Amino acid sequence: MLESRVTLQVRYSETDMMGVVYHGSFLPWLEVGRTTLLKECGLPYREIEAQGFYLPVVEVGMKYLKPARYDDTITVITRLAERPLVRIRLDYEVRRGDELLVVAHTLHGFTRHNGGPARPPAAFTEKMRALFAAKKH
Amino acid sequence: MLESRVTLQVRYSETDMMGVVYHGSFLPWLEVGRTTLLKECGLPYREIEAQGFYLPVVEVGMKYLKPARYDDTITVITRLAERPLVRIRLDYEVRRGDELLVVAHTLHGFTRHNGGPARPPAAFTEKMRALFAAKKH
Amino acid sequence: MLESRVTLQVRYSETDMMGVVYHGSFLPWLEVGRTTLLKECGLPYREIEAQGFYLPVVEVGMKYLKPARYDDTITVITRLAERPLVRIRLDYEVRRGDELLVVAHTLHGFTRHNGGPARPPAAFTEKMRALFAAKKH
Amino acid sequence: MLESRVTLQVRYSETDMMGVVYHGSFLPWLEVGRTTLLKECGLPYREIEAQGFYLPVVEVGMKYLKPARYDDTITVITRLAERPLVRIRLDYEVRRGDELLVVAHTLHGFTRHNGGPARPPAAFTEKMRALFAAKKH
Repeated sequence: MLESRVTLQVRYSETDMMGVVYHGSFLPWLEVGRTTLLKECGLPYREIEAQGFYLPVVEVGMKYLKPARYDDTITVITRLAERPLVRIRLDYEVRRGDELLVVAHTLHGFTRHNGGPARPPAAFTEKMRALFAAKKH
Repeated sequence: MLESRVTLQVRYSETDMMGVVYHGSFLPWLEVGRTTLLKECGLPYREIEAQGFYLPVVEVGMKYLKPARYDDTITVITRLAERPLVRIRLDYEVRRGDELLVVAHTLHGFTRHNGGPARPPAAFTEKMRALFAAKKH
Repeated sequence: MLESRVTLQVRYSETDMMGVVYHGSFLPWLEVGRTTLLKECGLPYREIEAQGFYLPVVEVGMKYLKPARYDDTITVITRLAERPLVRIRLDYEVRRGDELLVVAHTLHGFTRHNGGPARPPAAFTEKMRALFAAKKH
Repeated sequence: MLESRVTLQVRYSETDMMGVVYHGSFLPWLEVGRTTLLKECGLPYREIEAQGFYLPVVEVGMKYLKPARYDDTITVITRLAERPLVRIRLDYEVRRGDELLVVAHTLHGFTRHNGGPARPPAAFTEKMRALFAAKKH
């Protein structure tokens, strides 16, 4: 399993009139989590796009356990439990210290810039193979 | 089953650098769907809040089948399949004409403005009972 | 002077913890205004981009007179006071019925998809000439 | 003059189909700048609200010089040039390393939670007097 952690501060713009963070504001945070995980894997998403691929979201699931508030310090933990073959599943915990606020998952598939589905780029597959092989030992 | 339909035009701000609608931009659209359904039920959400209640999202699920694009005309179909008792489950289809773009659901529970969970307001329960009774006949 | 009007309903996602519309949420509304004006001029922005041009914002000014609230019906009035030569200046009023909520302006310049500044597309210049000539009579 | 600096990473959600950061995404960044400045002044905005005040934006001006891109490291420099009496004016530079991307200003006035305009809270006035007096020496 690969895991990354990233910390962020809640912005005022991310709240709504309930006085807490808008439920939709968590999606960009999950994305910050993914960006961090891929970068730590040596596969920055910026380069994936530069090579002609996209990695769109095909499914999202989120459970909201506790609200987040303006100026809270939030940790997003992103996990890749299994070596991705065609689809990539990521699992997330959004925390404020010891408190678990949201659990979520996203599912992704590679596409080409012209829109059609695609196999993962070779560099991606190779790197993932190496990272998961290293984890086993 | 109660159902409502609402139409919207995709805004430029709702796109991202993939050239299509950002996956998170669909959540505000689902909300436009809920706002419409509740208003058509004679239970405008604005009044629910004015009476001291909130109806936060406790769960979201979304599957992305096809991308939406800037300036597309989008229809959000919102369905309440069963009379809500404590939790409210809503199902959504996001369409562009005949094309199904996203299927989604949200789950909601009432809370009081001080944050604690609450039973639905009496007016809500009564209205839902009446609407679902009328549907049966 | 060319002018267009478009109506929208305030979304919950557009509010913040002050209980009113987030000041940044007005920018997408101005964009809805521009989209409408250009479409009514027979110059849909979608086609401008399809022809290889962008029309980015180079300056924004906004004055906030009164707050907007969730579920309000808002009118955005967009005005093009002078025939655009290189730069395009648009003026906006955001209203709720008779109440003026925000006055704003934006300034735009054409660029090519490769990023460099550009003269307006010929079709744009021609159409604007025709529309402003028609106004004079 | 008081000044603060804060660094952030551009999120994918902040881009639009022009391939660069959406012009409206800069407003939340200015807010991150203000939050940082106030905190460094010992006047966290969270506490200002807890004491029954809001500090809404009454005017915004932004000039866009160069685009920002996904995953860029951005610095927001926020300056309070003069000791605020009733209105507060803040000036901003948004930079990517040595490159100046956006210059902006915002104007703010205190209000009470019931909506009416208000004098600044006493603690705010005192702290600002002390900070600007210290700067002079």
